[in-house]
Amino acid sequence: MSTTERRITGVLSPVVTPFKADLSPDPERFVKQCRWLLSQDVGLAVFGTNSEANSLATEEKLDLLDRLVAGGIDPARLMPGTGCCALTDSVRLTAHAMKLGAGGVLMLPPFYYKGVSDDGLFRSFAEVIERVGDRRLRVYLYHIPPVSNVPITLALIERLLKAYPAVVAGVKDSSGDWANTKAMLDAFAPSGFDVFAGSETFLLANMRNGGAGCISATANVHPAPIAKLFREWQTAEADAQQARLDEIRGIVQRYPMIPALKATIARYGGDAAWVTVRPPLVALTPEQRASLAADLGRAAFTMPGLGLEE
Amino acid sequence: MSTTERRITGVLSPVVTPFKADLSPDPERFVKQCRWLLSQDVGLAVFGTNSEANSLATEEKLDLLDRLVAGGIDPARLMPGTGCCALTDSVRLTAHAMKLGAGGVLMLPPFYYKGVSDDGLFRSFAEVIERVGDRRLRVYLYHIPPVSNVPITLALIERLLKAYPAVVAGVKDSSGDWANTKAMLDAFAPSGFDVFAGSETFLLANMRNGGAGCISATANVHPAPIAKLFREWQTAEADAQQARLDEIRGIVQRYPMIPALKATIARYGGDAAWVTVRPPLVALTPEQRASLAADLGRAAFTMPGLGLEE
Repeated sequence: MSTTERRITGVLSPVVTPFKADLSPDPERFVKQCRWLLSQDVGLAVFGTNSEANSLATEEKLDLLDRLVAGGIDPARLMPGTGCCALTDSVRLTAHAMKLGAGGVLMLPPFYYKGVSDDGLFRSFAEVIERVGDRRLRVYLYHIPPVSNVPITLALIERLLKAYPAVVAGVKDSSGDWANTKAMLDAFAPSGFDVFAGSETFLLANMRNGGAGCISATANVHPAPIAKLFREWQTAEADAQQARLDEIRGIVQRYPMIPALKATIARYGGDAAWVTVRPPLVALTPEQRASLAADLGRAAFTMPGLGLEE
Repeated sequence: MSTTERRITGVLSPVVTPFKADLSPDPERFVKQCRWLLSQDVGLAVFGTNSEANSLATEEKLDLLDRLVAGGIDPARLMPGTGCCALTDSVRLTAHAMKLGAGGVLMLPPFYYKGVSDDGLFRSFAEVIERVGDRRLRVYLYHIPPVSNVPITLALIERLLKAYPAVVAGVKDSSGDWANTKAMLDAFAPSGFDVFAGSETFLLANMRNGGAGCISATANVHPAPIAKLFREWQTAEADAQQARLDEIRGIVQRYPMIPALKATIARYGGDAAWVTVRPPLVALTPEQRASLAADLGRAAFTMPGLGLEE
C-alpha cells in the first residue's frame, strides 16, 4: 500500500440510528448526530452493530448514506458497515459507499449460516472485493463472534491480505478477548494492517501494541474523552484517562447497550424521540432510564454540545 | 379460525435455489424444480434455510416469487420464508407473498441480535402482522436455534396466538429436539395450531402426536417417499417407511447438507449447473460428490421424473 495514503485511524462511533415514531429512519437527526460526533473528533462507523444496521433494509442504508453526504458530512470520515448476509446486498452497499467516497467499509461476514469454512468466507469477501472493483476500496474486517457467531480467524486474514494487500486494510476486533486482539496486532500490524479495538476498554493497550484506534459503542455518548486518549496515549495521563473511560463504560453496560445509548442521547440532548429502537430490541423502561441517568449523574457525566443547533 | 379453511399440511421442501455461473438466481431451473416437487406431492417452502434464502437480497426473492407464479405454480402451495433481520424487509416480502396468494409464510425471527427478549420478538412478529394487515395471512413461526441462535419459546407462541389467533397458524420446529416438538404439540396442536417437524426424522412421531407434517431439507431429493409416509402414517407399513427415510437422510447428512442436496439434484437430474452455491457455502469436492453418489447408489436411491422436460 502507498505510504502517503490517508488512512482512517483514531476513534470511531458505530453511530446509533434514530427512528421516527413509525420506525422509519430519521435522516435529519442522523445527520445532526454525525456532525456532533465529528465535532468531538470521532469518525463515523455508521451501520455497525450498535446502529441497529441489521434491522435496516439495504435501501434504507443507501438512502441514509446519501443523506449524510448531502448533509455535508465528509465521506472520508465514513466507515459504513456494508457486510450483509446476501452477497448482492454487500456488493451494492459497498459499491455505493465507494461511489460516495467513503474512507473505508467495515465488513461483517455473512452471518446466517454457522460453521462455514474459511474457504467459504474467503470466497465471500473476495467476491465483494472483485465485484466492487474499486482500487480505492479499503475493507476493515469485522470480527464480532458473540453476535455474528461467525468468527474471522487469523488464517482467513492472512489469506485475504495475501490476495488483496491494498484493499484489506484492517480489522475491528469485537471479540472482547484481548489475547485475540494482541494476536492480530502481532501477526499483522507490523506490515501496516490497522487493528481497531472493539471498545475503548482496550484502547490504551491497543495503542501501546501498535493498534490504530477503537470503534466503540460508547463513543456515541462519550466521544471527546475517548478521542482525547487516542491523541494522548503516550502521555503520563493516559492511564488515568483510561480509568475514567472504563468508569463510564462500566455504567452504560449495566443496561442493554443500544437502548441505553439512545436513552442517554435523548436525555443529554433533550430530545425524547431518540429512545425509539426497532424490534427485536426494546427501549429501556422508565425505571431503567431513571437509574441510568442517576448512575451517570453521580459520575459527573456530560455530553457537551449535544442538542445545540448549529 | 374457520374450520372450512384450506390449510397447508403434509410435506414441504425448503426448495434449494439454483444459481447461474455468475451466482445470480436461475428462475427457469427454479420453476422447473418446483413443478417437479409438486408432481411428487410436496409443497414449496421456498426461501428456507436450505434454500440459501439468507444469501439472497430481498429483490431477488421478490423476483423469484413472481417468476414462480408466472410459471404456473399454484400459490396456495407456497410457504415462502419471509422473516428477515430488517422489519421493513420482512413486511415487504410477506406483503408480496400475500398479494400473490401464498398459502402461508414461514417466518424466522430477526436473527442478528442475540439474547433478545420475548417482548422484542413479540413486537417484531406483531409489527409484521399489523403492517401487512391481510386477514388471509397465515404465519408459521420458524424455530431453528442451531442456526438462528434466536429461539422461539412456548411462551412467545402462546402470546402470539392470543393476540393473533387467526394469523399465527403453526410452527416449523428445526430444533432437532423431539422433546421440544412434543411440548409444542401438547400445548398448541389441540386448538388447531399446526406443528411441522423440521425434518422427516420426526415425521411419523409428529403425525402420531397430532402434528401437521414436516418441512425437510431432504424433501428436495426424496420427496415422494416422504409424502407417501405422510399419507400412510396410520398404516402397518409406516414404521418400515420411516426406517427407509431415515436411511436416505442418514446418507445425505454425512455431507454438508445444502451442497449435498444440490450435488444430488445435479447428478440425478443430469444437470451439472445445479452444484453452484453462493458464498459463504462451498460446493462439494469431486471426491465428496463421488462418495455421496456411491453411498446413494448402494442404497438404491432414485429420483424418478427429475430431469425430464414437461
